[in-house]
Amino acid sequence: MKNIALVGIGKIAVDQHVPALMASDDWALTATVSRVGTVDGVPAFTDFDAMLAAHSQISVISLCLPPVPRFAYAARAIAAGRHVMLEKPPGATLAEVQLLSTLAAQADVTLFATWHSRMARGVAAAKAFLSDKTITKVEITWHEDVRRWHPGQSWVFEPGGMGVFDPGINALSIMTEILPMPVYLQNAVLRVPENCQTPIQAELQFSNNVHASFDWLKQGDQQWDITVHTQSDEVTLLDGGNRCVMNGVPSTQTSLDEYPALYARMAQLIDEGQSDVDLSPMIHVADAMACGQREMVDPFHF
Amino acid sequence: MKNIALVGIGKIAVDQHVPALMASDDWALTATVSRVGTVDGVPAFTDFDAMLAAHSQISVISLCLPPVPRFAYAARAIAAGRHVMLEKPPGATLAEVQLLSTLAAQADVTLFATWHSRMARGVAAAKAFLSDKTITKVEITWHEDVRRWHPGQSWVFEPGGMGVFDPGINALSIMTEILPMPVYLQNAVLRVPENCQTPIQAELQFSNNVHASFDWLKQGDQQWDITVHTQSDEVTLLDGGNRCVMNGVPSTQTSLDEYPALYARMAQLIDEGQSDVDLSPMIHVADAMACGQREMVDPFHF
Repeated sequence: MKNIALVGIGKIAVDQHVPALMASDDWALTATVSRVGTVDGVPAFTDFDAMLAAHSQISVISLCLPPVPRFAYAARAIAAGRHVMLEKPPGATLAEVQLLSTLAAQADVTLFATWHSRMARGVAAAKAFLSDKTITKVEITWHEDVRRWHPGQSWVFEPGGMGVFDPGINALSIMTEILPMPVYLQNAVLRVPENCQTPIQAELQFSNNVHASFDWLKQGDQQWDITVHTQSDEVTLLDGGNRCVMNGVPSTQTSLDEYPALYARMAQLIDEGQSDVDLSPMIHVADAMACGQREMVDPFHF
Repeated sequence: MKNIALVGIGKIAVDQHVPALMASDDWALTATVSRVGTVDGVPAFTDFDAMLAAHSQISVISLCLPPVPRFAYAARAIAAGRHVMLEKPPGATLAEVQLLSTLAAQADVTLFATWHSRMARGVAAAKAFLSDKTITKVEITWHEDVRRWHPGQSWVFEPGGMGVFDPGINALSIMTEILPMPVYLQNAVLRVPENCQTPIQAELQFSNNVHASFDWLKQGDQQWDITVHTQSDEVTLLDGGNRCVMNGVPSTQTSLDEYPALYARMAQLIDEGQSDVDLSPMIHVADAMACGQREMVDPFHF
């Protein structure tokens, strides 16, 4: 068992990280750090350095904080010789994640920049099937209701909050995992509410006939689908990657849910002395934010 | 002598690339490709593929096109087994330059993503001096008049045109060259004219007490300066990196101007079978465009 501390006890930690750790034989949740959140039966700290000092047996730190404060915690954990696992996106900027990667290599610890949607149950089958195919067309549809999934979280519309790319980067993390070739953005339209800094809708046209539509104003049925056409096949990922249908036939699914699979991968990376930091989903978002055509749309209120 | 073709015969080609090639013993300018521009005495093509087919002895292609069309030319040149040199910035998106880098490696040709300001005559001295110092503060001031340097070039304010980051990336290319440690953006303010898509002014706060001020509305004296403070020294680069003053004393300068130095480096890279693709200046721009606070300012007209 590896001793791990969880930093940032908010909704994602309680819903996903804690149950995944509790259910695993690989992990012992030994401490938490949070201003307010705690986990029953687990020693709780509000000060990160105090926790590091008190628990030298904790070799792994998992950070569930928002992107902006995450860098400082990650850098301190690495400096203290601990392995680090990062929620998505791995940071507020590309440059800071590259620096973390360098620091982790210098300190000889594992850094895992996770993309939980890559662990959705249908993704591995789609990736394996497409690995030797020629892709002719890809359509990505990520339409959800921000009021339902991020109620009152106004930080998503502030600088660095990513707007609709917060869910959209999950789609891009699957896209970059399953396609057998790299793609690059050719143009983008970003629709930004006049009282916000970040887009609420985005249309992305990539090379290789790959198109993505992100919409954070979808009411009713929510949709997180990717359809990939090859010269003679159609592969569809439904429900955020959790179901894969190949030419009309449901494929087999991987056995673990997203977060248990992430923690199993983290244990493996540590045992192998490896890191896994793939910035490609974040690079596509940065490219879109740098080159996209911005259109002002109606103000948004939760 | 290496046979080279120059693609995109506009102002930068005529002012910088052609004289640099003509003055060098390493290079023979053997063909040009441009819709309208030509160079006296050099075979001129309007069709890139026709030039490639007609001149199998041309082993090197130098691209002086704007960023957006550049990718397609670079990919075709690499596919045709030619070495490629790219003006700054090396592309419209980070993803496309990464792909070019992969394609060049697969084709076993040299790819050189140039940053001409890194070859300014004072940069090498500043870099050498700072290599073992602890940096306490950096102030970058890049204030110029867009109407003087880019008259009527409205594309700079369209999506992908980069706005004030077009000159500002030159400062960032020097910053990333001379500082002995990586830095990352912490926050940015982008001032965007209400009739434009890209910023006309930017204030960037990096880690390690590094600050940059970019302004495209500076009238009168133009300013392209970087001042670096260490615990006991002050190093200033003036005139876009061309003069270096250390603790009040002018330093020695490198012997070549920017473009002759770039072409000397390209010849060396080819001879050594190496590529040089450093995306760090472009990553800082993408980070600023993705995370910066946008403020709308008065409309801009040339």
